[in-house]
Amino acid sequence: MEIAVVGGGLCGPLAGLFLARHGHQVTLYERRPDPRVHGAVGGRSINLALSARGIDALERLGLAEEILSQVLPMRGRTMHATDGTQAFQSYSADGTKAINSVSRGMLNEVLLDHALAEPGITVLFEHQIVGAAEDGTLDISTPAGQISRQHQAVIGTDGAYSAIRDRIVRSAHTAFTQEPLPWGYKELSIPAAADGTWALDPDSLHIWPRRHSMMIALPNLDRSFTATLFWPHTGEHGFAGLGDAATILDRFRAEYPDAMAVMPNLVDDYLDNPVGPLSTVRLWPWTLGRLAVIGDAAHAVVPFYGQGMNCAFEDVVELDRCLGETGDDVLAALQLCSERRKPNADAIADLALDNFVEMRDRAGSPWFRLATRAEHRLERAMPDRFMSLYELVSFTTVPYSEARNRGRRRRKLVGAAVSALDAISEPILRRGSH
Amino acid sequence: MEIAVVGGGLCGPLAGLFLARHGHQVTLYERRPDPRVHGAVGGRSINLALSARGIDALERLGLAEEILSQVLPMRGRTMHATDGTQAFQSYSADGTKAINSVSRGMLNEVLLDHALAEPGITVLFEHQIVGAAEDGTLDISTPAGQISRQHQAVIGTDGAYSAIRDRIVRSAHTAFTQEPLPWGYKELSIPAAADGTWALDPDSLHIWPRRHSMMIALPNLDRSFTATLFWPHTGEHGFAGLGDAATILDRFRAEYPDAMAVMPNLVDDYLDNPVGPLSTVRLWPWTLGRLAVIGDAAHAVVPFYGQGMNCAFEDVVELDRCLGETGDDVLAALQLCSERRKPNADAIADLALDNFVEMRDRAGSPWFRLATRAEHRLERAMPDRFMSLYELVSFTTVPYSEARNRGRRRRKLVGAAVSALDAISEPILRRGSH
Repeated sequence: MEIAVVGGGLCGPLAGLFLARHGHQVTLYERRPDPRVHGAVGGRSINLALSARGIDALERLGLAEEILSQVLPMRGRTMHATDGTQAFQSYSADGTKAINSVSRGMLNEVLLDHALAEPGITVLFEHQIVGAAEDGTLDISTPAGQISRQHQAVIGTDGAYSAIRDRIVRSAHTAFTQEPLPWGYKELSIPAAADGTWALDPDSLHIWPRRHSMMIALPNLDRSFTATLFWPHTGEHGFAGLGDAATILDRFRAEYPDAMAVMPNLVDDYLDNPVGPLSTVRLWPWTLGRLAVIGDAAHAVVPFYGQGMNCAFEDVVELDRCLGETGDDVLAALQLCSERRKPNADAIADLALDNFVEMRDRAGSPWFRLATRAEHRLERAMPDRFMSLYELVSFTTVPYSEARNRGRRRRKLVGAAVSALDAISEPILRRGSH
Repeated sequence: MEIAVVGGGLCGPLAGLFLARHGHQVTLYERRPDPRVHGAVGGRSINLALSARGIDALERLGLAEEILSQVLPMRGRTMHATDGTQAFQSYSADGTKAINSVSRGMLNEVLLDHALAEPGITVLFEHQIVGAAEDGTLDISTPAGQISRQHQAVIGTDGAYSAIRDRIVRSAHTAFTQEPLPWGYKELSIPAAADGTWALDPDSLHIWPRRHSMMIALPNLDRSFTATLFWPHTGEHGFAGLGDAATILDRFRAEYPDAMAVMPNLVDDYLDNPVGPLSTVRLWPWTLGRLAVIGDAAHAVVPFYGQGMNCAFEDVVELDRCLGETGDDVLAALQLCSERRKPNADAIADLALDNFVEMRDRAGSPWFRLATRAEHRLERAMPDRFMSLYELVSFTTVPYSEARNRGRRRRKLVGAAVSALDAISEPILRRGSH
């Protein structure tokens, strides 16, 4: 019997390719029309940060070169203070390592192209799963009517609002948590300047940390940036308060004046684009009979470490490894893979929530800048023994749970060192940046 | 437009009656056939403990007398040690207060009879909700085909696996936790003795606390008892190990010899009856547009405080109050009701999990018996100022959250007193009962 992969986004085609290369027959079901024909559907983030774990998965399939020729490397963060002051913080000690701004649409199309060209994979667009049973049977709504098909295994790669996960959660033996952040996100655009040049440094990820709100921006190949507001839903600094041009312009004038200067479509973007939700989802087990989920479907995380896609891709690499170890027993491999990935998925969920606080509050503070510089100095002095948490997460494939444990120990050490320094050089550290 | 109440179990008909008496038009949808025609469906607990909060709801509708004529009052717990020794612990200081063993089937039928007789309520059996929208539209599968209807409000009283809650959880703004206990339950029967008398004292709830497992039994009007095993799913003391008559009899001979002696159908009961799951469900908000949930659908709890039904009935009493306070604005009343009930639902969920540990481990211990006696002595001495947690929960309508806080303070006080005593009378307290 065939293996069903549900969801033709990023994780689904990737999983399909690995399965097909193990010799399995795969049907990939996607509820939307073919994005290469109809154009990508909005409402999702436009660009993403591709880093080591994601690249590792692409390399194993021989796709890394093709993708990496279409990304923009970001070597560090540029922090924007309210007064327009910019401060660059390198992501790595040697200043050369980069995370990569990649278009979700491009990545989706390349992966789908390869899935469609792969012997052993059938891709069915406009096929929506409306029912799933433990025995691998899917009820599928198609343009030609509803059909029902049984599969050897069903792998849900259908994202944070997964239909396959819904079925797994309906078992009373399943532990499930959906924890919304009281903040949402909205995308805005920073077009290329009139003379065709970049409006901001394209070599970094831009952050406007404002404690009660935050904005980031990632570069696109067409020399525009996509900015994302991360704001509370309600309250003084929230989305709810802004309903017309005047209030929108007032807020940006007060909080993001330098960004506003390069956002000619600010008011229209703000009014046209929806506020997306941000949630952490935890699930256990990830399997029920012949059903399984991986990627966001099993462990949606908040986007503040830029690891959602990278973590999902690493799930697929682990599945590939488990297929090898179990002699291609797909159900056994899914079980083993989930057991190995669960602690790592929990770790990156925690780290992403921690980083939310860090990006929002601390990245702009002198304390944080000093701590980052101190970490980098230690890294340069002892590159084998000391690597920052950010580097472990973004530039290695050290398991997330180990990275979290090592990183927390390191940060504690540096914190103690910086606090000792604090006692000596009080004026520097007491000065706030905003 | 009409108000939909989804679920014709215990909470649904009760909510329908209160709404109808406020002058609302109510349609009650139940997916099963009429239990008065087809007999009650199995798989649910056969009897329940009705206490003050549940009785309060029934009194407000004028139904308490009818129900209370068909219950068996239980004035305390009878603990059964492995050697057959029995110890009775009164639930109240004066020994007169009782919780009431009631048949779920009888209660369901009486409530449905009254709902069917109530002007303003339409009861539709064999109507299963297959879709629910924020605007109050329900897609309903009926014996005559699928229909779609909009309602002013939809109140999901459809239990721990609520379809209405599923829709509310699908909003990314909803916080949801489903936390399974690694234990399940299985029902067994203790028939009346051959001479027609009770096999055990019918005036109490029977508990066989075994630390790694537990059994309870509640009396029925026909002089039988329904026993419920609460065992881990797996492991040495779990359900998983027992598959045939020999292993079942061995386990009972070792752990429940006195109960086994009055269980002639033990092996058949054990093999025929399913293992049910035990979960705690937490949700917030309880509403989404015109959809709302109350009772188990909003806050399923483990059954160890005997408060699941009583808590659901108290939700309905609060809804009745809120309808009065909002001038019968049903949506506003549901919102207000949920805000007031949420902390109490959380409190009884916590207390039920605490009581799991207490019933399993401590109820059989000399320490616990001494603490209970000390509490009762204090209660008799200062009845206004001192009431045990159990009494606050079971014999008053003091809000659960307040009961939890007061009860925990009391228990701490008594714990200190008993520990002081412990230092003096060491031999008594060191002696274990099993």
